[in-house]
Amino acid sequence: MSTIKIGLFGLGTVGLGIYSIIGKARNTHAEISRICVRSLDKPRPAEVRSELLTDRPADILDDPEINLIIEVIDNADAAYRIVSEALRRGIAVVSGNKAMIARHLPELIELQRTHGGALLYDASSCGSIPVIRNLEEYYDNDLLLEVKGILNGSSNFILSRVFDHGEDYARALREAQELGFAEADPSFDIEGYDSLFKLVIITVHALGVYVSPDDVFTYGITTISSDDIRLAREKDMKIKLVAQVVKVADESFTMFVMPEFVAPSKYIYSVDNEYNGVVIRGECYDRQFMFGKGAGGFPTASSILSDVTARLHNYRYEYKKMGYLGRPAYTTDVELRVYIRFTPADTATVEALPFTRVRERYTSDTHSYVIADIPLRALIEAREQLRAPGIFLCNIPRFFLDRD
Amino acid sequence: MSTIKIGLFGLGTVGLGIYSIIGKARNTHAEISRICVRSLDKPRPAEVRSELLTDRPADILDDPEINLIIEVIDNADAAYRIVSEALRRGIAVVSGNKAMIARHLPELIELQRTHGGALLYDASSCGSIPVIRNLEEYYDNDLLLEVKGILNGSSNFILSRVFDHGEDYARALREAQELGFAEADPSFDIEGYDSLFKLVIITVHALGVYVSPDDVFTYGITTISSDDIRLAREKDMKIKLVAQVVKVADESFTMFVMPEFVAPSKYIYSVDNEYNGVVIRGECYDRQFMFGKGAGGFPTASSILSDVTARLHNYRYEYKKMGYLGRPAYTTDVELRVYIRFTPADTATVEALPFTRVRERYTSDTHSYVIADIPLRALIEAREQLRAPGIFLCNIPRFFLDRD
Repeated sequence: MSTIKIGLFGLGTVGLGIYSIIGKARNTHAEISRICVRSLDKPRPAEVRSELLTDRPADILDDPEINLIIEVIDNADAAYRIVSEALRRGIAVVSGNKAMIARHLPELIELQRTHGGALLYDASSCGSIPVIRNLEEYYDNDLLLEVKGILNGSSNFILSRVFDHGEDYARALREAQELGFAEADPSFDIEGYDSLFKLVIITVHALGVYVSPDDVFTYGITTISSDDIRLAREKDMKIKLVAQVVKVADESFTMFVMPEFVAPSKYIYSVDNEYNGVVIRGECYDRQFMFGKGAGGFPTASSILSDVTARLHNYRYEYKKMGYLGRPAYTTDVELRVYIRFTPADTATVEALPFTRVRERYTSDTHSYVIADIPLRALIEAREQLRAPGIFLCNIPRFFLDRD
Repeated sequence: MSTIKIGLFGLGTVGLGIYSIIGKARNTHAEISRICVRSLDKPRPAEVRSELLTDRPADILDDPEINLIIEVIDNADAAYRIVSEALRRGIAVVSGNKAMIARHLPELIELQRTHGGALLYDASSCGSIPVIRNLEEYYDNDLLLEVKGILNGSSNFILSRVFDHGEDYARALREAQELGFAEADPSFDIEGYDSLFKLVIITVHALGVYVSPDDVFTYGITTISSDDIRLAREKDMKIKLVAQVVKVADESFTMFVMPEFVAPSKYIYSVDNEYNGVVIRGECYDRQFMFGKGAGGFPTASSILSDVTARLHNYRYEYKKMGYLGRPAYTTDVELRVYIRFTPADTATVEALPFTRVRERYTSDTHSYVIADIPLRALIEAREQLRAPGIFLCNIPRFFLDRD
């Protein structure tokens, strides 16, 4: 087992976590040779050896001694340039940048195939839960029916504060930011994009199919109001931000990210605070549930370290399911049941939606709601209008009695 | 990807499940070529093609076309003969026989190394939860602190009926047998040996150390009484049969199987009925929880099929952690806090135990109990005496407030 010499891009919360864990883990045979940061002038903790720092990516990319690059920078475009350049040179890369990976995965897979490099990104998907590698290695796609879960720790933390501690949304968001669970600009988390990118990656490894993030209906929790929260409480439910990919027939599947009413009998009901939880449902093994910390520097760093260890043993994703015959195709031609709450000013927008069947209607002078069946396709077409500040949309899962 | 031709040993519940799933799974490139059974005369379901059946092991072992053996027979000695002979011939084997594997693992590892065959046994450990492969591939041992869980579905089903449905123990046991969750001879499950064998296998993949089952303290639920159940209920706890391997220092770990008082805040508290749940605790990722069906033909068969799929990609356990420097050593020199309930006739036995400190004592004319600290070593020395029908022993985890 030879030593891995690591070039690290990024020294934020996760980068520092990696630096500190690699120091601790005696058996990894891995060491950090160089660290590329945006600014050399920024103050760093004392444990960081300053002679490792550089602000020139080439100091890592051109170093023939470095045989693994870890990329944990914020900027998706810069991350893409670094990762694709490294793969073009056949260097192995571990990345936690879900936005970049979800947008560029087909090209990144091609680069791995052409140049023999390997890209691992288990850390990108559920913090410390090994979802990607399990889907890749363990679950055979014929038997896989559904992957569904809470994939974003920050929004889940906020919803937990609101539901379990009765806090108001704005205060919960501030608290999440103070604890480091949400970024200064939290829109990525609370508008559902973080969950979306993870779902796109999960789907590649679950079903062998890449779906562009732009084609997937994504709705966040930004517009949730006390009316929605009160209604959920009255029905003894919580509202959670849920991402799911579901086989709807042998030859097709659908996927979306949406707030959802969750009943106490479901596994994900008890996934609270910054935790993530994923339910994998199969034909024979029924449901499996994996649960762990989904936000924070250390869980992510530890997951990255697992990818580093995997590289010590030359592990690579093989994307086997992409080569299977009879892969299912993505469809938005499925009917969902949704709750839509709206202010009087938004009435026209909501009334214009092509509901297949309206099941409940509530009207008051401050807000109204409908519970209705609607094709997913129609939600995608109306997504801009549905983002109005006075509208909140929430999925009502079809089979309330199912444990998922 | 070439086709795998399978020789199947055993056509009980699990064997039939495998036969049926392999028929369904279109992408596995696997087919069953031959099935060795104990008796050709036994009636089989109509779907079983009778021309595949044989009662001569050599019809499988000597067939050069067969490149994978699945062994799912009851008898551990016969299983050992088949598996070791197949490995000696360099044939790959998938087995679910935990007793056999736990007893012979060092030799079976050696046979794989010498003859180039591979033995996979994820199905042996937690039904459908991919614990072994995750420990082998994902969790680096420097960071791993503890693996703890409910590993036996049958005893957990019984305890769930007793605690959640107020049934008496004998009726719950009968029900488990009727539902196929417990064998006709249930001692393997309820005396803790099934959990023990799984724990021995898990420890090899968690810490890289093999500990013989004979050296591990194992105590089942056979002698539980309504007094114990009432006490647990009064304290708002459940009693669960828990297996655990725990690092107690950098260079040592301990392990045991014992009933345990479990508080509602713990993950395993809500693992009910035939389910298994495993908590993996690490230094950086905190706790991860995996949960799934742990008993029954289909979950086990599906897990075996995952091993078959892994073989399609030439996967093998590498037992990497066994080669690590500084592996921790097994120790029984740790202090536990236990509850021991006993009848007046057993007083002398219990009083003779070398408690370090007695914390509570309760005496009545029908039964008494002590809560006391005692070295694990002392429990091992007294294990025969502690199996008296009038005695029940239950672990009290040190840190009640911990979520595990």
